[in-house]
Amino acid sequence: MACCGSCLCCQCCCRDGETRTPEELTILGETHEEEDEILPRKDYESLDYDRCINEPYVEVLEGMDNKKAKKYEAVKWMLVFAIGVSIGLVGLFVDFFVRLFTQLKFRLVEKSVKECTEKGCLALSLLELLAFNMTFIFIASVLVLIEPVAAGSGIPEIKSYLNGVKIPGIVRLRTFLCKAIGVVFSVAGGLFVGKEGPMIHSGAIVGAGLPQFQSITFKKIRFDFPYFRSDRDKRDFVSAGAAAGVAAAFGAPIGGTLFSLEEGSSFWNQALTWKVLFCSMSATFTLNFFRSGINYNKWGSFQLPGLLNFGEFKCPDTDKNCHLWTVVDLAFFVAMGIVGGLLGALFNCINKRLAKYRMRNVHPKAKFIRVLESLLVTMVTTVVIFLASMTLGECRDLSSPTTNNTTALVSLTEDVNSTIRQFFCPNKTYNDMATLFFNPQEVAIHQLFHQDGTFSPVTLSIFFMLYFLLACWTYGVSVPSGLFVPCLLCGAAFGRLVANILKINIGMDIYSGTFALIGAAAFLGGVVRMTISLTVILIESTNEITYGLPIMITLMVAKWTGDFFNKGIYDIHILLRGVPLLEWETEVEMDKLTASDIMEPNLTYVYPHTRIQSLVSILRTTVYHAFPVVTENRDNEKEFMKGNILVSNNIRFKKASVLTRAGEQRRRCQSMKSYPSSELRNVCDEQAGAEPTDEGQDILQQMLERRHMPYPNLYPDQSPSEDWTMEERFRPLTFHGVILRSQLVTLLIRGVCYAENQSSATQPRLSYAEMTEDYPRFPDIHDLDLALLNPRMIVDVTPYMNPCPYTVSPNTHVSQVFNLFRTMGLRHLPVVNAVGEIVGIITRHNLTHEYLVAKLRQHYITI
Amino acid sequence: MACCGSCLCCQCCCRDGETRTPEELTILGETHEEEDEILPRKDYESLDYDRCINEPYVEVLEGMDNKKAKKYEAVKWMLVFAIGVSIGLVGLFVDFFVRLFTQLKFRLVEKSVKECTEKGCLALSLLELLAFNMTFIFIASVLVLIEPVAAGSGIPEIKSYLNGVKIPGIVRLRTFLCKAIGVVFSVAGGLFVGKEGPMIHSGAIVGAGLPQFQSITFKKIRFDFPYFRSDRDKRDFVSAGAAAGVAAAFGAPIGGTLFSLEEGSSFWNQALTWKVLFCSMSATFTLNFFRSGINYNKWGSFQLPGLLNFGEFKCPDTDKNCHLWTVVDLAFFVAMGIVGGLLGALFNCINKRLAKYRMRNVHPKAKFIRVLESLLVTMVTTVVIFLASMTLGECRDLSSPTTNNTTALVSLTEDVNSTIRQFFCPNKTYNDMATLFFNPQEVAIHQLFHQDGTFSPVTLSIFFMLYFLLACWTYGVSVPSGLFVPCLLCGAAFGRLVANILKINIGMDIYSGTFALIGAAAFLGGVVRMTISLTVILIESTNEITYGLPIMITLMVAKWTGDFFNKGIYDIHILLRGVPLLEWETEVEMDKLTASDIMEPNLTYVYPHTRIQSLVSILRTTVYHAFPVVTENRDNEKEFMKGNILVSNNIRFKKASVLTRAGEQRRRCQSMKSYPSSELRNVCDEQAGAEPTDEGQDILQQMLERRHMPYPNLYPDQSPSEDWTMEERFRPLTFHGVILRSQLVTLLIRGVCYAENQSSATQPRLSYAEMTEDYPRFPDIHDLDLALLNPRMIVDVTPYMNPCPYTVSPNTHVSQVFNLFRTMGLRHLPVVNAVGEIVGIITRHNLTHEYLVAKLRQHYITI
Repeated sequence: MACCGSCLCCQCCCRDGETRTPEELTILGETHEEEDEILPRKDYESLDYDRCINEPYVEVLEGMDNKKAKKYEAVKWMLVFAIGVSIGLVGLFVDFFVRLFTQLKFRLVEKSVKECTEKGCLALSLLELLAFNMTFIFIASVLVLIEPVAAGSGIPEIKSYLNGVKIPGIVRLRTFLCKAIGVVFSVAGGLFVGKEGPMIHSGAIVGAGLPQFQSITFKKIRFDFPYFRSDRDKRDFVSAGAAAGVAAAFGAPIGGTLFSLEEGSSFWNQALTWKVLFCSMSATFTLNFFRSGINYNKWGSFQLPGLLNFGEFKCPDTDKNCHLWTVVDLAFFVAMGIVGGLLGALFNCINKRLAKYRMRNVHPKAKFIRVLESLLVTMVTTVVIFLASMTLGECRDLSSPTTNNTTALVSLTEDVNSTIRQFFCPNKTYNDMATLFFNPQEVAIHQLFHQDGTFSPVTLSIFFMLYFLLACWTYGVSVPSGLFVPCLLCGAAFGRLVANILKINIGMDIYSGTFALIGAAAFLGGVVRMTISLTVILIESTNEITYGLPIMITLMVAKWTGDFFNKGIYDIHILLRGVPLLEWETEVEMDKLTASDIMEPNLTYVYPHTRIQSLVSILRTTVYHAFPVVTENRDNEKEFMKGNILVSNNIRFKKASVLTRAGEQRRRCQSMKSYPSSELRNVCDEQAGAEPTDEGQDILQQMLERRHMPYPNLYPDQSPSEDWTMEERFRPLTFHGVILRSQLVTLLIRGVCYAENQSSATQPRLSYAEMTEDYPRFPDIHDLDLALLNPRMIVDVTPYMNPCPYTVSPNTHVSQVFNLFRTMGLRHLPVVNAVGEIVGIITRHNLTHEYLVAKLRQHYITI
Repeated sequence: MACCGSCLCCQCCCRDGETRTPEELTILGETHEEEDEILPRKDYESLDYDRCINEPYVEVLEGMDNKKAKKYEAVKWMLVFAIGVSIGLVGLFVDFFVRLFTQLKFRLVEKSVKECTEKGCLALSLLELLAFNMTFIFIASVLVLIEPVAAGSGIPEIKSYLNGVKIPGIVRLRTFLCKAIGVVFSVAGGLFVGKEGPMIHSGAIVGAGLPQFQSITFKKIRFDFPYFRSDRDKRDFVSAGAAAGVAAAFGAPIGGTLFSLEEGSSFWNQALTWKVLFCSMSATFTLNFFRSGINYNKWGSFQLPGLLNFGEFKCPDTDKNCHLWTVVDLAFFVAMGIVGGLLGALFNCINKRLAKYRMRNVHPKAKFIRVLESLLVTMVTTVVIFLASMTLGECRDLSSPTTNNTTALVSLTEDVNSTIRQFFCPNKTYNDMATLFFNPQEVAIHQLFHQDGTFSPVTLSIFFMLYFLLACWTYGVSVPSGLFVPCLLCGAAFGRLVANILKINIGMDIYSGTFALIGAAAFLGGVVRMTISLTVILIESTNEITYGLPIMITLMVAKWTGDFFNKGIYDIHILLRGVPLLEWETEVEMDKLTASDIMEPNLTYVYPHTRIQSLVSILRTTVYHAFPVVTENRDNEKEFMKGNILVSNNIRFKKASVLTRAGEQRRRCQSMKSYPSSELRNVCDEQAGAEPTDEGQDILQQMLERRHMPYPNLYPDQSPSEDWTMEERFRPLTFHGVILRSQLVTLLIRGVCYAENQSSATQPRLSYAEMTEDYPRFPDIHDLDLALLNPRMIVDVTPYMNPCPYTVSPNTHVSQVFNLFRTMGLRHLPVVNAVGEIVGIITRHNLTHEYLVAKLRQHYITI
């Protein structure tokens, strides 16, 4: 049944594109199947993971010795530890208040229910519950209004960030506060949401913020570690923070580490991994330490691993024939994996349509509409669980299962039997529906995993369906809301249902808890489609290594089944936002394309020396984030190139001699700068260019460094402009380096330029610290006060550009381009032909799956 | 005491270099501290991990569609599963026979001891034991004589392989047989060796061999998966196999996966990781399935995770105040980590000197000397354990601890109390020394972890010292010998000693088993210095996630302490062999160097079209494994370059039109090949080169592909030769691609060439399958029968070279070069300047730590 539903729905999903206008499709971030050209959105920036080793950076390097490097490393370790501890404390905070509010709420409502069952004032109890829930959700919803990025689980955002895409506001202090406080209220408010996703997001923000020790709010507090002021370091710390978030949420430090690597995973940097694992461990054990102390008053012991744990799966000691699972069960697990995959695909499909509906009908409207939506969902959820518990639950006998089950009790958090609910039932029996609905979700999961034989199949089916639909509706409402726990609970009900059928109807000797666990894994796997990290997280949460194989097989089957229909829920939401995510690797077929097929050939570039007016015009009229620095292949340069008669005995490259001579030159030129004569400058420049040719060995050196040593041509007036014809744009251009928009703006704002009649050596020099001072929010070109700038001044960008980015040749196949780009965390990949001319540039947008598919189609058409 | 010993010894290690002659140092693979130039050995080849996308490969690609790709993927999954299952079976085999032989031996000897204690014929018992052990070790040693690579643990070799270095014979079937059978006898022979290292090596061989389904022995059996016939695929499968080996050995599938990634870890390829994890899971559960079935007759359940497991750490249910560890214990764990690091450093230091001694005095001599050495070690070990058990053991009371301990018993493998030994002791007591020595090592570890309060401190101290020295002597003897279990046992004794002192002498309330475990981790960590994977392996082996933090902290401290003195044991052995291993990343200081500082500027290159005689001469007179394909920057080429007036409106690159025209050309030329006129060929070639200039859009295309489309110069007679002056060698050379030695030899052997008076299009074409048919053992150039070749024929290498390898500019800093090289798994990295001329080449040898340090020193000197 579920299978058919899923198929039908997915066909609908595929079809619904055809009934919409192209404008609507653009709004939805979706593209028509038959469309030829797919344009990924350009409004997300990429991270600069690759180091830009320009002159200011080299200066820092020169001052670096092993001692400093070790100190720097030690600071990193301390920071990582601090991040871990902080995240542990955040987890503690969230857990403590959720628990407090939930207990308060349930205690009062239960009391009221007990009283009212006799008096017949149940409507009053419902109203009381409604009041609690609506208040909590209202607070959560208002917090999200303050910072809209705090909505949802945050995993799509963190996934995008680790993948290399900047999403504005994602790692800010304000987001953190809204998320951490909001999730307390959204969970306490009785919505079907989890706190694990928001924990991961919070962890990532702590990771990003702590090393900076400076957010938009505390801009004045600042430490002197210039190294951490770059996207590279920030992303490394975000990896650590996200991992620690997972670790704190699930008590799964290894799983957390693998999560970061699975999602982020630029190249596998072991030094980083080790730190990430340490950070995760710190978070887990900080949380563990305080919870053991606060909840049990056992300070110094470590008994409560994570916010979520599944209790201990254990056969009763008395039953020697009991097995957690046997090889026969594996077949059922595979089947459950398939069903879980189908259910997950259905869930994703419905949620996708809902998300699109919201984007079209809710988001464009006034913001308070979103709050109203959250309140509506809360109201419906509350009424449904109340009515279901009242009318649909079965009264089950309490005494019989208890005796059988004492040994398998959960000693870790709470006694299973203490959390059952007696609602509307006679004494010594309890209401099974209410037990699932009127408890925190973690407790309900525990019930399904460990309470033996107490849920009727009807209750489980109804519970599953209600929960499925409500959870699906809830995910996407603008409150902080995780998805893990609802999916686990929903799946556990499904698994328990299977177990009940097998055990009671067929009479097999199975361990129900295992089936509930596998059901949870299957459904969660079907929804989120994570693989390695989810396997490890679940294994660590159960603290039972023997579940490794069944969990892995189930997740694998669920993922493959689900992938047949649609993508994972996080990927769907990422796609809906138009984030240009890069997959793990390209499909084999894509290798039919080469770099020249996918590159952007229409370049906007700057010259090594450019007038301010040109720079400003380029920066104001384009949206590119980086510009190649080029020189034109004019005749004089050709001559220059020809001049390289290579006299080279087996020379040791005496770099120093060149360097010192260049330094000497510079000093001489600078002493001359008081004479503002352009001839003098020319003499200087010529001398600088000419002298090295005197000695043979310097020619080799010069040849090695030809890329940027003496730039033979200076075209301050001829910057590329809007008015250019296409022919002018496509002239052969020798590639020298790449400069970022942010670097150019910084140069302009700090007045790094020289007058036409002076040498470029007179230009003021910026240090690395000055270049990165405004990180991470560099000023915009439109904030620049043009009146302060002399448009005729010239900027020498060569000391600040990245002189040797990785490049590829135009014939490089896409898989190689992709691997280079993805594993090195690149942002701009210049395509340079065999004679050093730039012919195009590749960015993240040129490597997204959609773009590649479109290009491949073109490729087939032209053949 | 141990601390001082370690310090002294390490100083000796540092000093001993000074007393040797340079020749000796070269033999030892060691370099003098003051030496200026370090030359890493060149006798190891690198793996070709990066894809070479040449024409034959593109042909395969063209035939690829999504369906085929999926099929190919499915085959990979099946293979990975098969590898996992096979390794599980190998583990089963090793385990079964080790158990069989050991039980047989101990049963007979114990019987004899019992009888002889009364009769006074203990010498006879000793002789019996000696006979067993010497026989077993003799067999193991002879097996290693057959295949010397099978000696030792195999982890250094696998580490090198995963790092990207081919060590001859390392993944052959013969090595596998010798290793797997040899380890059974070496472990059964009572030496202090483990079976875990050899299991990992065996796993790697299975991984390498199974997909090839062809080893040197079964060369005829062959499947049609051309993709798997490359270093890239082979290495991926070896990763999976090694991981499965770890998984089978320790029951640690996640740890195994992380081991592969920690050691191997080209870029973090998720698709691969997922397969590796699956492979590990398959291995663990195959082994688990069969062992549960065979040992307990419980087919279908999974009760015995790995060959080695540590039993269940659990507080007795009766004791509510018992904790496995508390926060106070952490301080002791840190102290134990420091001591473990020092002990490990001492172990490594002694073992290094021994290894050097062996290299100098044992290895150069006749092979049977090695067998004699093994037998000597066996004899001493046997006598020592016998005498120690007889004279140094204490008789401990049996009854008292048992009552306290029943709940903490190891239910998994064997009852702890059933494995104690009563040797020479009155009834109801037992000999604690004999219990440790006269049991398989795994059982002894169990005893130390779980037997409560039964070992006297004196016994533990003596045991530790004897074991330490004997294990140290044993590692390096030519039998298959792992190091994990001896180190664990040794460390466990140390940890247990600490626990005894704390518990009995100071009276602290601690859990002894935890201390024994931490001691084991500390010592093992101090010796092997592995980090992430070892943490996870130990966590998985204990099946107790709460041990995560203490184990991790201990390992971290042990590693840092040990690293202060020397390297890990595996790295020491790798260094002694002179393997050019690449570290995780370069030190910060190295960034003062650039690619031009470290590259090899003296190149041997080939032209696109070269005469056979030149090729043969190059191949015979050099040892390089790859040659850049270059053309000289002559005037005519300069003209050619100038010709590029770029007419380019916003052109869609109609690649097809060029392709088809080129194809047309080729067809026309081929039809003309019956006319053996050189003019005609020139017409053809000129036409092919000239025609595209007619149309503007093709110029852009041509510009894009200038790297190899029409090679304007053909110098078949001017191949580089020995007689060249340095000036000639250092001419400016335009870089077009890289061709491997193996590819050139294959071309020569298969007669791929054309006569001077014909077009190059007449050259026969080889398919991908033909190019890789001889993989992995390509023929040598010296096997080539020159009589069959016409030396005047010309080879066109352009279709077979790698036309677009990754390149770097000469100014790229070392960290960027290193990251590119390491993460992409490169073998040759051409250094190309700004105008496309090759100025040098970087290989693995230019990036080893030693080489970089030497270059950095040069750099400082010149400044």
